[in-house]
Amino acid sequence: MNAATPEANFDQRVDLPHLAGSPVGTLQVYDTTLRDGAQQEGIALSVADKLAIAVLLDELGVGFIEGGWPGAVPKDTEFFKRAAKELDLRNAELAAFGATRKPGVRASQDPQVRALLDSEAPVVALVAKSDIRHAERALRTTGEENLAMIADTVSLLVAEGRRVVVDAEHFFDGYRFDPAYARAAAATAFEAGAEVVALCDTNGGMVPVWVSQVVAEVRDALGPDVVLGMHAHNDSGCAVANTLAAVEAGCTHVQGTVNGYGERTGNADLLAVVANLELKYGLPVLARDDAGTSRLPELTHIAHAISEITNISPFARSPYVGASAFAHKAGLHASAIRVDPDLYQHIDPALIGNDMRMLVSDMAGRASIELKGRELGFDLSQRPDVLSRVTERVKDAEAHGYTYEAADASFELLLVEEIEGSRPQYFRVESWRTIVERAGGRGTPASAEATVKLHAGGERIVTTGEGNGPVNALDHALRLALVGAYPELESFELIDFKVRILDSMHGTDAVTRVLIEHTDGQSVWQTVGVGPNLLEASWEALTDGTIWGLRNRGVVPR
Amino acid sequence: MNAATPEANFDQRVDLPHLAGSPVGTLQVYDTTLRDGAQQEGIALSVADKLAIAVLLDELGVGFIEGGWPGAVPKDTEFFKRAAKELDLRNAELAAFGATRKPGVRASQDPQVRALLDSEAPVVALVAKSDIRHAERALRTTGEENLAMIADTVSLLVAEGRRVVVDAEHFFDGYRFDPAYARAAAATAFEAGAEVVALCDTNGGMVPVWVSQVVAEVRDALGPDVVLGMHAHNDSGCAVANTLAAVEAGCTHVQGTVNGYGERTGNADLLAVVANLELKYGLPVLARDDAGTSRLPELTHIAHAISEITNISPFARSPYVGASAFAHKAGLHASAIRVDPDLYQHIDPALIGNDMRMLVSDMAGRASIELKGRELGFDLSQRPDVLSRVTERVKDAEAHGYTYEAADASFELLLVEEIEGSRPQYFRVESWRTIVERAGGRGTPASAEATVKLHAGGERIVTTGEGNGPVNALDHALRLALVGAYPELESFELIDFKVRILDSMHGTDAVTRVLIEHTDGQSVWQTVGVGPNLLEASWEALTDGTIWGLRNRGVVPR
Repeated sequence: MNAATPEANFDQRVDLPHLAGSPVGTLQVYDTTLRDGAQQEGIALSVADKLAIAVLLDELGVGFIEGGWPGAVPKDTEFFKRAAKELDLRNAELAAFGATRKPGVRASQDPQVRALLDSEAPVVALVAKSDIRHAERALRTTGEENLAMIADTVSLLVAEGRRVVVDAEHFFDGYRFDPAYARAAAATAFEAGAEVVALCDTNGGMVPVWVSQVVAEVRDALGPDVVLGMHAHNDSGCAVANTLAAVEAGCTHVQGTVNGYGERTGNADLLAVVANLELKYGLPVLARDDAGTSRLPELTHIAHAISEITNISPFARSPYVGASAFAHKAGLHASAIRVDPDLYQHIDPALIGNDMRMLVSDMAGRASIELKGRELGFDLSQRPDVLSRVTERVKDAEAHGYTYEAADASFELLLVEEIEGSRPQYFRVESWRTIVERAGGRGTPASAEATVKLHAGGERIVTTGEGNGPVNALDHALRLALVGAYPELESFELIDFKVRILDSMHGTDAVTRVLIEHTDGQSVWQTVGVGPNLLEASWEALTDGTIWGLRNRGVVPR
Repeated sequence: MNAATPEANFDQRVDLPHLAGSPVGTLQVYDTTLRDGAQQEGIALSVADKLAIAVLLDELGVGFIEGGWPGAVPKDTEFFKRAAKELDLRNAELAAFGATRKPGVRASQDPQVRALLDSEAPVVALVAKSDIRHAERALRTTGEENLAMIADTVSLLVAEGRRVVVDAEHFFDGYRFDPAYARAAAATAFEAGAEVVALCDTNGGMVPVWVSQVVAEVRDALGPDVVLGMHAHNDSGCAVANTLAAVEAGCTHVQGTVNGYGERTGNADLLAVVANLELKYGLPVLARDDAGTSRLPELTHIAHAISEITNISPFARSPYVGASAFAHKAGLHASAIRVDPDLYQHIDPALIGNDMRMLVSDMAGRASIELKGRELGFDLSQRPDVLSRVTERVKDAEAHGYTYEAADASFELLLVEEIEGSRPQYFRVESWRTIVERAGGRGTPASAEATVKLHAGGERIVTTGEGNGPVNALDHALRLALVGAYPELESFELIDFKVRILDSMHGTDAVTRVLIEHTDGQSVWQTVGVGPNLLEASWEALTDGTIWGLRNRGVVPR
């Protein structure tokens, strides 16, 4: 082992002889968000949703978009009808998913197979059994007939001019039980004209060392000229790594879903797979535009745009694209990050369109507060006095239970107060009161009302709001009181409300921290309130959120 | 390649010669949820939270619990103080985290190092620079002095009788830049008496093929007798696989956090790592009880109990422990699953305490309810009728937002109702009301009062309680109303109160879940309340807690 000189024995890139110098497209990126991803609990996509997602995937530059199972799912039949008319894909081929023919019928007479042809998708992905136990126990047929089903169906589709991808279901489990049969299923598909056989870890239980072994053995058995694919699920928490292991062992087609959507623990997160292949393996897997540049910097935007469509809130800790993926908390790191950000990030977040963020927390020092200020558009480097005062106030506030790491808007108001001398005076509160009452025994619903007295727009205003709880009632009363002077409030909505008791050794005698999230349809902002009284803390966060929102819109106090 | 006969060439287990036949503990499981996990955006643990999590981790059977950074974080200093008095760990050793001495000072005179000794933790984890660039640019010292800092600090701690784990920060990045220096840092730590050197992928950018190469080279260089550890972050989506790759290449100490909590994309999910090592690699890594059985079946329960304490909603797609991890769409799979569930799951979910679900049905399986009943001392195996009714009610309750994961007392009352026909009638509530008021502008403290009307001990009672918040006032009014008939209440105290908004898409219009913890000085018990109104939900949890406490004391309704 010779490692005397730096980098003597270490590659910046993973070395993949079988892909060396491959042009774009040599390694196929096959997205199944619209089919396997849609199996996720809580996802229900309309045809319009599916069309919108397909456009985003094509923009990103994937090679294949699996749209659904025409014939089996009416919505998918319609998707392919409309896609043929409405979609103008620049990079991706559309694929229809289906199954091999039923036992004992002719492929051309199996309505399910006919529906695949009728979809007019240029590519068809056929799920086929490669585990003898599934052929016998799930399909209730023989291993021999299962192979005939693969051969017949693939041949028919190829004869009809379709490109065929065979998804070899339960391939890894099947191979572990009976390697010869699993290989025979794959070989049969290729002999019948399949362009790709995707080896599926349908139950998701593989770990990389097993994947490497199986793929290498299959590649040895079938030769280097066939295109093997990998379809992974995340049940062992290794879906991304299993996909990378498969590529290293010879697969040149990878399947996955955006944000790792899918049944159970989900499919391989295609965005993380793509980012790793492009940035760590040096493989150009996404289509390039005419100028030869890739859309990788769109990765984060596309991940979030698609989660808007699926209406599944994005997972902050997602690799590469998560809101927290490049967020730093520790003051220890912050000082070093000022010296050189690359000391503390594995890639430049700009490469995938994400941003580095500083979290202001009790581990934070002047350094992270200065960085946070810059992020919010305040240059404190020339204002050491302000920086000191803000740092002191943050430390003091956090000692009393405040946290600004999830409340940028409250932090910004604090900053504004120190820089401009005071926060904007949109209104002056005289008093407020809430009454919550349950007028009967068990099962009787409780009622809540709130009365707010304040001064705004030169008048004294008294309003009462009702709600299904005290905070909801306070929110309604405050909005009602201010909307006359500030019609901009019409568009504000309170979208999240979190409560935490800080010293849980004293139960309700303890300090309460409330985090509130507002939106005006364009921006989303968070504020924090703290106090011994839950409603007092809520009121602070409510009013701060209103003030920040008005200031952000450039509204002047009236 | 010979694969003529089934399983001829495929191991059920990953073959690890260097660990063959290892007894429990040979491979060390080191949890850093309380330190590195607490760096996650949105997590703010109180000392009481940390103590509660430590107890759960010890129950699970991890080998080490890293509690925090005494001296640097005041809360952590207090944690170690209280842990020494209050924690009685059966399986785990407590570890204090800290850094090597400052450049140019003596270790014995570095207050940060002294604080580690003062914490009296038997194990100390020292973060040390192993990347020459970090030594020079972040610490602003020389590579030589950095090695001296490692040697001095480790020697001092060892001389003071501590077991020392050195976290070699940025080891993989450092090794890629200058292998010789990274190795020298590790060698220096071992020479000074460190028991373990954990190789840290601090920036989380590694992929398994790189981890395997580095660990293998380091092991070759340092010999087979040293204990190397792996500390992975998930920035490439490969933290679990990187940890497995490190174990395959010779690491015998793995670090991680529960639910993969941590900065940015989080740390390696220790629960997935442990489940993979136990179930896929056949390595006994969790402590066994006297009967030799492991607590692996507690995995899911502990994951969810800890997420209740961190107040971070559990991620449904988490490997092994997620609510969706063994959920199947009904229909296509369902029939085959009835034939043989193992056709569609990578492991038996009972092994880690999770349940298989059909998505048409709900979370609660009969099996888990029978299990929980037994845990509480109710044998339902002979009462299929009760089991069915309870399962139905739990399904219905969970559909409305209830969770019994962290509210055994509420579950027990539900069980009692089904077994004995009704819950004990200690009192009958006629009505309640709370008023919270802030009579002045900013800074004026708010006041809270509650009035309760109920029947107990044969009388109608009307009481008013004050408090620093509405729930506190309700608690005082209820206690005041009942203490005459039930003096046992004198000893009851409400010690924790947690609120979670369930559907965060509608802010305060959403359903609220309240978890309340009571104690009577001897036992501690948890109850849950759910409703659109925060105070209504709190009232339900308050009254259930009171009822359970009285019943637990054997008090008869008066």
